Parts: sequence; structure tokens; C-alpha cells
Amino acid sequence: MKEVFDVQLFRENSETAVGILEKHLSDQSVRGLELVDPAVLSRAARALMTTEHERVADFDGAKLAGILDLYVRTGIAVHSPGSMGRQFSGVVPLAGVVEFVSSVVNQPSSFYEAAQLPNVAEQIMAEELNRFIGWPAGRFEMLTTSGGSLANLTALLAARNKAFPDFWAEGGPGAAGDGRPAIAVGEDVHYSVSRAAGVLGIGEAQIVRLPLNEERQICPVRAETALAAAERRGLRVFCVVASAGSTSVGAFDPLDELADLAHRRGAWLHVDGAHGASLLVSDRLRAKLRGIAKADSLTWDAHKMMFVPAPCTLLFYREREHSLGAFRQQASYVFDEEPDPYTALDSGDRTFECTKRPMIMALWTLWSVYGRALFADKIEQLCRATALAYEVLLEQPDFEVLHRPEANILCFRHRPAGLSDPGPADERELHRLQVAIRNRVKQNGTFFISKVDIDGTAALRVVLMNHETTTEHFRMLLHEIRHAAQDIRTTARGNR
Amino acid sequence: MKEVFDVQLFRENSETAVGILEKHLSDQSVRGLELVDPAVLSRAARALMTTEHERVADFDGAKLAGILDLYVRTGIAVHSPGSMGRQFSGVVPLAGVVEFVSSVVNQPSSFYEAAQLPNVAEQIMAEELNRFIGWPAGRFEMLTTSGGSLANLTALLAARNKAFPDFWAEGGPGAAGDGRPAIAVGEDVHYSVSRAAGVLGIGEAQIVRLPLNEERQICPVRAETALAAAERRGLRVFCVVASAGSTSVGAFDPLDELADLAHRRGAWLHVDGAHGASLLVSDRLRAKLRGIAKADSLTWDAHKMMFVPAPCTLLFYREREHSLGAFRQQASYVFDEEPDPYTALDSGDRTFECTKRPMIMALWTLWSVYGRALFADKIEQLCRATALAYEVLLEQPDFEVLHRPEANILCFRHRPAGLSDPGPADERELHRLQVAIRNRVKQNGTFFISKVDIDGTAALRVVLMNHETTTEHFRMLLHEIRHAAQDIRTTARGNR
Repeated sequence: MKEVFDVQLFRENSETAVGILEKHLSDQSVRGLELVDPAVLSRAARALMTTEHERVADFDGAKLAGILDLYVRTGIAVHSPGSMGRQFSGVVPLAGVVEFVSSVVNQPSSFYEAAQLPNVAEQIMAEELNRFIGWPAGRFEMLTTSGGSLANLTALLAARNKAFPDFWAEGGPGAAGDGRPAIAVGEDVHYSVSRAAGVLGIGEAQIVRLPLNEERQICPVRAETALAAAERRGLRVFCVVASAGSTSVGAFDPLDELADLAHRRGAWLHVDGAHGASLLVSDRLRAKLRGIAKADSLTWDAHKMMFVPAPCTLLFYREREHSLGAFRQQASYVFDEEPDPYTALDSGDRTFECTKRPMIMALWTLWSVYGRALFADKIEQLCRATALAYEVLLEQPDFEVLHRPEANILCFRHRPAGLSDPGPADERELHRLQVAIRNRVKQNGTFFISKVDIDGTAALRVVLMNHETTTEHFRMLLHEIRHAAQDIRTTARGNR
Repeated sequence: MKEVFDVQLFRENSETAVGILEKHLSDQSVRGLELVDPAVLSRAARALMTTEHERVADFDGAKLAGILDLYVRTGIAVHSPGSMGRQFSGVVPLAGVVEFVSSVVNQPSSFYEAAQLPNVAEQIMAEELNRFIGWPAGRFEMLTTSGGSLANLTALLAARNKAFPDFWAEGGPGAAGDGRPAIAVGEDVHYSVSRAAGVLGIGEAQIVRLPLNEERQICPVRAETALAAAERRGLRVFCVVASAGSTSVGAFDPLDELADLAHRRGAWLHVDGAHGASLLVSDRLRAKLRGIAKADSLTWDAHKMMFVPAPCTLLFYREREHSLGAFRQQASYVFDEEPDPYTALDSGDRTFECTKRPMIMALWTLWSVYGRALFADKIEQLCRATALAYEVLLEQPDFEVLHRPEANILCFRHRPAGLSDPGPADERELHRLQVAIRNRVKQNGTFFISKVDIDGTAALRVVLMNHETTTEHFRMLLHEIRHAAQDIRTTARGNR
């Protein structure tokens, strides 16, 4: 036991890790992912495990180095310009260093006494970020929680309990009678929101889908009609959920109009800004979230566009008192019980977690050391690179681009000459081709991209998260896609 | 931007962190927590922040060192023998190193392609740990999730959806009719379980409280009566929740009997083993969880008694198919859709999170490098130390001990000579004295302990998580408690 907790060994192991990470971060090659058969990887992993001992095994540095090396090698190369597939990315390296400290000092942050600096840092970051939202100081609330899905659920729970004060103690009212609880979401809403309806006892069948316009944003006029129709069906829509940066194409719903629409009907407006809320810190891009100050709650993933390790999700409420309603219907007595300056910072009564990682520390440290400009500059660069990629695509006769990008997500299809004109049969072929291209590109290992179904047909999707990814890389990707499509179609013809 | 991502700077910052952590871990003094006024700490934190810049601020090493130093200094001294207050502790240092790597490589682990080794490591750890549960290979399932509260919710959700297949789409049945959904829990159940009833649309009012015996374990005979009474009231109890290591006193409910009881009534048995499931890895202590193989699901926090950074929660299901029911009522088509060896390891359809930390990596690495004995030895040592502390308390006429410890949690009260004989007035004085002692001891800064209300009266609570804490330290704590009580009572008399 003494050796296990030995401080000198800790230093040596830390140096092993730093060495491996340094090499990893220094690799500037263009690459994606090397996909390994799970059975093969499992054998490699098992070979690195100590066999059953009666006593604690002696430390073996070679084994540790083998484990860490295997770990680093088998991930997506998030630091490479070839990584364009997902909304996570190479973190700012300093954020990783702070997380290292967090992992060792072990300060669960739901209660002030257990994590003093993280709780203070949460308050500071709340104030810093609210400058770009614009709520009156002292009224709003910000909490950290373990991921955007949990933040969305928590906000919906607060909204549910406010609209239906008996729901917490009694459960839902059931199908009988009028005013059945319901939520309204855009067609492209993240799956965590529709799931939340199933989890919270609203029922997935009580989700009202709001139609989108051509930019895949919720259309307020048609939304109004849909809400009126839902009311006639006996539904009481207590919450409208807007996306600020949809997962599929990065579309920003019109928050200003949707807030008015929701509030006219006595509903709560929740904004899922998991991806796009970070645009608020940029003076150039903030307007994408025009109307955000009217929202009732906002989900903001700092582990997406603020480049810190996952999870680091911020959940904002316009009214602090509403945050107290999520986990008990009458929570105001929490305030009165202990009017002491320490417990006033406790958040355990407002977050799902009892034991919570001090996730704010990486974000606050980056903000403190580098300032807001780090985030604003990088986000602007990513959005600019995406706009340029869009321009490149417009010039290509064998690609169709599905939307003008609002942020750093871009969806398109490769339609090589020789595919027939649009039509049902062609759509199926087009769909299959995009899926096959995505998989082929992934297997080739130079680029990592994703796919998404848009109006029922697959599309290729890039998310530019790495500021090292240039238009030149994007052109290389298109080249690779064309080659992949040729191979796929040649093979298919050969197999006939 | 170049400097921010510079690899040499990453190395230097890592070395700064290692230096600060090394000093922190080397401090062997007996101490608890230095509680700082949040306003004072906030000023100190703000002073370390860069002021608003148009451009990314130049890196300032002194600022970073100041932040990390403040962070380390203001936490509970979890590595000190004086830290006895909570179920978190000083982690195995190597676990912190692995989390460092996780933070930099950023592999969200809900999908195999994004985190290949973590997904394989989850499978391996599932098999390793199931050796001590004893379910047939290939049938059971293990998932990682962000904390015990989320694991408890997820298991209850799976149980709810199995018993009430329409709940997911339609919401709860409401108060009308018979067979209203309900859950049954022990009186000492963790608050996350009763909260889950409110969250999931069951309703807190539909929680059936099962009476405890003198050891604060659920009494199966009286539980049977309570369940029968609930049924007569029109409730359909679809899940019984047992604790394997209750939060308050570390009591282990009789799983074998409760499983039979639940299954006779067609209910699911969920075991909240957040604290105590780790005892399974010890040959000496495993019997505390006799009957675990009959449970339907089990929550197991590795960030408690397996000494890795939080969160690292394991959620086990006896039947894999039930795990698929948590987030959609008919999920079996997930199997059929893509019968490919890579996506077979994806867990995103069974866990709450979409983006999830690769939390298994620290646990698997410790298990691989040191073997099971590391955990078994340390847990046995902690339970032995707690049994010795109990023996010490029995000898003290001015202390009353509230239970024989089953694990490493021990609750007791200080009842100095001069407090009158037990009675209602005395109970209030006794209560106030324990609360005052706990706060005084915390302020003194040598020890960190907690308090818990037992049968309505506060008690002092120690959780021995540090293998360096000896009987001698416990005697020092009792000495400190006596002094604190004297001071409190002298001050109180002086104020009269």
C-alpha cells in the first residue's frame, strides 16, 4: 500500500504520461481514426493486465506505458486537421492540466465546504458569461452539470414542476381530462430532449413537433399554428424547446420570436445551446442568439465550443427561484433554513448530482489566464473556415450543399455524374452512397467525418472544431470522397 | 493561438501541476479543512484573472501557479488522516494520472468509434467484477454513468418501463383506477432514490417506506406487511430498493430475503450499492451482500470505495435486455439494426449521457497494474479500523455509539456528564450540542467529520476512507470533541 501511494512514484508516472501526451500532441499529420476490431483490442488490453495475485502486484512501469500508449493510439486523432467528424475536439492543453489537478485533489463541487474554489469560480463564470446573455445581476442562476442531456432534463423538470405543482408528489395527471402536459420542440431537436419527455412522465406521444423553414430553423408562424392545434387536441404545452445550434446542421432557431410565442401561451422557453451558446462570447457572432435574454433557461456545453474536457455543461436560469423548483416543488424553505455565507453557495439542491466533478475549474482557468479572446478568436476562425468550405462546395458540380452554414457545421452530399436525376430510386442510391462514403473515408484513416439523415436521406457532415483545419484540408477531403465513391461504385459494378 | 496550443508550454504547465501536487501529497500532517469566507476567496480568485483584452493574453506562469496553489489549498485535506467526514477520499495517485491522459485525449465513451479502449475496458471490468456478483456470463450488462444518482434513476426507469410499458409514450396512468405505480424503499434510503420518484412521474407520495430493524437494515417481515398494506391502498409497487451500505450508517439490507420478497410480488429489486458494493471484491467482506446475484440491478460507485476520481459509477443489470428498456420502451430493434462488431459495443442507447467521460480508464488501469488485492486490502483495512474505533467508543462513558459498524461508517454522540438523563428536553440539547461540535471541530481544522440525523437527533459521523487513519487518530478526535464540547458549553453558560 505504501508504494501505491508513494509520491515519488506519482511523479514518475506523471512524467510518463506527459511524455506520451507530448508526443501525441506534437503529431501534426492529417489523420482520422484507426478502427480496431474489438476482439483484437480486447486481447491486447488483457495482455497488459496483471494476473490474479494474493497480494498487491509490484508496480511495473512498462505495463503502465503500454496501457497509456494503447489508449492514446486508439482514439480519434482530435488534434489532427483531419478530425472533422464530431462536436468534440482537441482540448486546450492547459485545460487538461487543470483537470489533472482536479482528479488528484478530488473536490466534489455540489457543496461549498468540499470545493471552495470551484464554487466561487462558478459564481464568477456565471457573472462573466451573463454579460453576453444580459440578465439582471442577482436574479439569474447558473449551475454546472454532467452533460447537455442532463441539463436539458433538469430545465424541463423545473418547467414541468412550475406548470404542474402536483406533478412532483402525485405524478402526471394521466390521460383523463383536459390540459395534458406536453412540450413543443423543433423537428431537428436533439434526442435528449425527446427522451426527457419519456423519462419525466410526460410521454413521448405528447411531444408537439414544430415545423422548420428552409434553413432548418423553427418557423414561428407555423409553430403558432401547431401550438394552437395541440391545444385543441387537449394538450397543455408548458415548455417550448429551441435549439441554438442544432446538432444536425447547426441551425439557430429565432429565439426572440419563439420567446414571445411561448410566453403569450404561458409556456417556458428552454434553449438547447449545447453547441451554439458559446457564440455569445464573440462580438461578431452573438447576434445568432438574438433574444436569448428572454429565454427561461439555457443549456451551454463548454466541452464543445469552449474546448475543455467533457463534461462541462452550464445550465442557466433567468430566474433563480425557478432553479429551486427542479427537484422539489416547494423549495423556498431551503433559503430560510441556513442563512450562512458558506451554505449559500451550495448547489446540491438544484443539481441532479450529489457528487459532482469540479468541472468549472478548467474553463475558469482558461478564462482567467487567456481571457475571453481565446474563445472568441477560435470560434470565429472555425465559423470562417466553415463559410469558406461552403464556398468551395458551391463550385463543385458533383456536390450538393444542404444549407448555408450558420456556425461550424456543414452538411452536403456527393452526387457524382452518372447518378440519375433526383427521384425516389435515386434517393435510395444517393443515401446508400453517402453512408458507404462515410464508412470508407473513416476506414481510410486520413479524415474523420460523420453522417446525418436530412429529410430521410443521408448526408455527409463536417464539424470544424480544429483551428488548424484549412480550406486546403477541406479540398483534400473532397478529393478523398470522390475517390471513395469511385471505389465503391466500381466494386458494386464488379459484384453484379 | 499558436502559443496556447504549444506543446512545450503544455510540458511546462504539466510540470508546474506535478510540483504542486507532489508537495500537496507529501504533506502528512493531521488536518481537515480551512474554511474561507466566500467573499474573501472570490476576491482572491478575481485578483488572479486577466483583465479584459482585445487579444488573447500572453501566458503568465505566475498566474497559473497562483490559481493551482489556491485550488489545492482550499480543499478538504483528503490525503490527511484527519479527513474522516465524507465518502470521498484521497484517490490512488495513479488514477489521477490516468484521468490526466483522459482529459487530454478527449474520447467520449458512449460510442465505440470515439473511445475504443475505454469501451473494451468496460467489457473487461464488467467480467472481472461479475466474478464477485455471480451472474451467468453473456446475460448481464454493465454500463458506466456519471454518478450514483444517475445510476439509481436509470435503473428505476428501466424497472418502470418494464412494469408499465405505456409509461414512456403516454406518461403515468394518473390517480384514476387501481395499480398506481409506486416504489418501496428503506427509511434510510439515499435522497437520490426518493427524488427519482418525483423526477420519473411516479410521485413522491407513492413511495412506500419500509421499516428498519435495530441495525437500521430493512426488516423483511415488516416490509412484507408494509407492501401488503400498500397494495390494499391501490398501489402497485414495481420496484423495491435496498441499500448495500446506507449513506447514514453503512447498513447492509438483507438482499437475499428482499429479492425473494420483491420477486414474489412481481417487483424488481434494485440495490443501491454506491458505497458498499465494493466490499464484493474482498473475500472476507463479500458476505455482507449475500443474495446480490438475485438482484435485478446494482449501482456501484467506484469513486467511493475504489478510490478513483469522481465520477465513476457502474450500473449493473442482471438481464441485458432490461438495460435496453430504460430509454425507450421497445429497444430490441437496436440489436437488429446494425449487427457489426464495432457498434455492438456502443452504449449510448442505454445510458443517459450522449457525451460521457471515459471514466472506466482509471479503474481499469489500477486493476490491471495492481490487481484486485489493492482494493480488497485497502477496504479490509478501513473496515478493521472502523471496528477498532467502535471498540474504543464502547470504553468511553461520555460517548454513545449508535450501531455496530458493518463497514467503514460509524455514528455516535458525545453525551458529556452534566447533560440530564434522556428525555425530550435533553434530546434537543443533545442535538444542538452535536451540531455545534461538528462545526467547531471543522473550524478548528485538525479533523473533518460529518453529522447525520438519526431518529430525529443529530449524531457525529465518521467515514474512514484513508488507510493512514489509525486508532490513535480516532482517540485524538475524541479528545478534540470533548474539548470542543467544553468550550461550547462554557461559552453558552457565559452568554446566559
